[in-house]
Amino acid sequence: MGEFDYIRWVRTQTVGNDRVRIGIGDDCAVLTPKHRETLITTDMLLDGRHFRLAEVGPVRVGRKALAVNLSDIAAMGGRPTTAVVSLGLPRHGANAIAEGVFQGMHALAEEFGVAIVGGDTNTWDGPFVISITLLGEPGPVGPILRSGAEVGDWLLVTGTLGGSIQRKHFDFTPRVREGLLLQDLCRPHAMIDLSDGLAGDVGHIAEESGHGFVLFADRIPISDAAHALNDGRALDHALSDGEDFELAFAVTPAEGQRLLDTQPLANVRLAWIGLCVPEAGLYLEQDGARRPLPATGFRHDFT
Amino acid sequence: MGEFDYIRWVRTQTVGNDRVRIGIGDDCAVLTPKHRETLITTDMLLDGRHFRLAEVGPVRVGRKALAVNLSDIAAMGGRPTTAVVSLGLPRHGANAIAEGVFQGMHALAEEFGVAIVGGDTNTWDGPFVISITLLGEPGPVGPILRSGAEVGDWLLVTGTLGGSIQRKHFDFTPRVREGLLLQDLCRPHAMIDLSDGLAGDVGHIAEESGHGFVLFADRIPISDAAHALNDGRALDHALSDGEDFELAFAVTPAEGQRLLDTQPLANVRLAWIGLCVPEAGLYLEQDGARRPLPATGFRHDFT
Repeated sequence: MGEFDYIRWVRTQTVGNDRVRIGIGDDCAVLTPKHRETLITTDMLLDGRHFRLAEVGPVRVGRKALAVNLSDIAAMGGRPTTAVVSLGLPRHGANAIAEGVFQGMHALAEEFGVAIVGGDTNTWDGPFVISITLLGEPGPVGPILRSGAEVGDWLLVTGTLGGSIQRKHFDFTPRVREGLLLQDLCRPHAMIDLSDGLAGDVGHIAEESGHGFVLFADRIPISDAAHALNDGRALDHALSDGEDFELAFAVTPAEGQRLLDTQPLANVRLAWIGLCVPEAGLYLEQDGARRPLPATGFRHDFT
Repeated sequence: MGEFDYIRWVRTQTVGNDRVRIGIGDDCAVLTPKHRETLITTDMLLDGRHFRLAEVGPVRVGRKALAVNLSDIAAMGGRPTTAVVSLGLPRHGANAIAEGVFQGMHALAEEFGVAIVGGDTNTWDGPFVISITLLGEPGPVGPILRSGAEVGDWLLVTGTLGGSIQRKHFDFTPRVREGLLLQDLCRPHAMIDLSDGLAGDVGHIAEESGHGFVLFADRIPISDAAHALNDGRALDHALSDGEDFELAFAVTPAEGQRLLDTQPLANVRLAWIGLCVPEAGLYLEQDGARRPLPATGFRHDFT
């Protein structure tokens, strides 16, 4: 349907993935997945809604558009394999935007072994829009859902939280490698990537699992970026800021303790931040008291 | 990433497809394809570029957005299985638009046994945009590419051509059933769906196959819609109008003859319209003379 054919562009791309047999000049790409199960996710990013193209430039936008999808595969403990990309390009500067976007995507695709096998490139009178669909295969323990947390499980999180608006929301590294590495050492009962903010996303695990979670205020790893906001609400930022793109996951206490003791994730630190409890909902334990925390996200009038 | 979560919506959808195990409330859907190979295609439709939402309404737009993807699966001789859908909705009237779009999509998805397993729904200040990624499995003879035509092959086409702007470009039935039925009776060497216009699309088969095609002017099935345009250029319309969404395919003369004799496709008539020749390029045979036809599409100054 596009004026110029993105699929032609990938003719020159090195696809380091033997699952991809064709996908050039045809109406579909043909994939030959090695795994019996396929993960699929899709995310659309819109200029003026999720970013301002004129401020951040097309390279970072292209990178982020792929990175948010990679983070969804990571959240399932999966390994990304294949992507298709659709673009709506403003007529003015369409080629330069497309080239920047692909530059940003390709670097990340190569880093994570993703083959971009096709897409649909259009120009129009509207603002820039990009939609990526990413396929993956499950990791060693199979797809890790949101719904498997058990009462008594420890909640662990990778990295540090809050203040991602400073830089990380664009330049984060999706936790694909970490999600896979974890499965050599434990069997996560439930996992999610933190895109809506810690409280909101742990709320999703709680709801899907049919239990609740207590978060320990003094154990939440607050990022330097959250402290640097210097507004006296660093913990709020760690609880409620979106787009940290870290992983939160529930494991047995024994496995959680072993992970904390061994810290197996190279440069990414694991922290124990909460506990799965039978009471539905989210709770914050702070200064010896336990208070309800709205599952929809942290409210500032709550502190 | 969306303000409201499309995946919640499909919780109430009947998914008549045992390949889909989950996909509700998680970061990815998990598919269990039965076939070793997976087809994947994606198309984005943009308000003001591919349609005018205010004129045609969201139901027909939703239907078409899925139908163009179904047509790409049909072009490979495949059977569609699973779709994900991303929407950018203008803030004003977002809910009504989304509901109309899903209504149009769901009707067609049900007709073709497609499970819509997830997506990403956003609002923004731009015009309406929809991007669908569709997966499928190959038909009985495997994926049918554009590149397999052999010299001497007959070129056949389903249905009638031209004038789709009148109505058919929105309300066409993708030739999925026909593409599959054909494979009970022949082994197409190459196939494509006619989205860019007959001349342009046969040009793709010619180029990918490394040969050329002669089209027989008096054998091309011109649609009533092309005649109804009543501009004395009905053949031009059949050769150059886009969005017929019929199938063109190359078969051996023996198989072609049998298909013409048996007309096995219920209400969809097959016509023999051309021949694969060793000379690269496209040619039109008319009134006993053979003239080159630009492979990029029929030019009106050519007649």
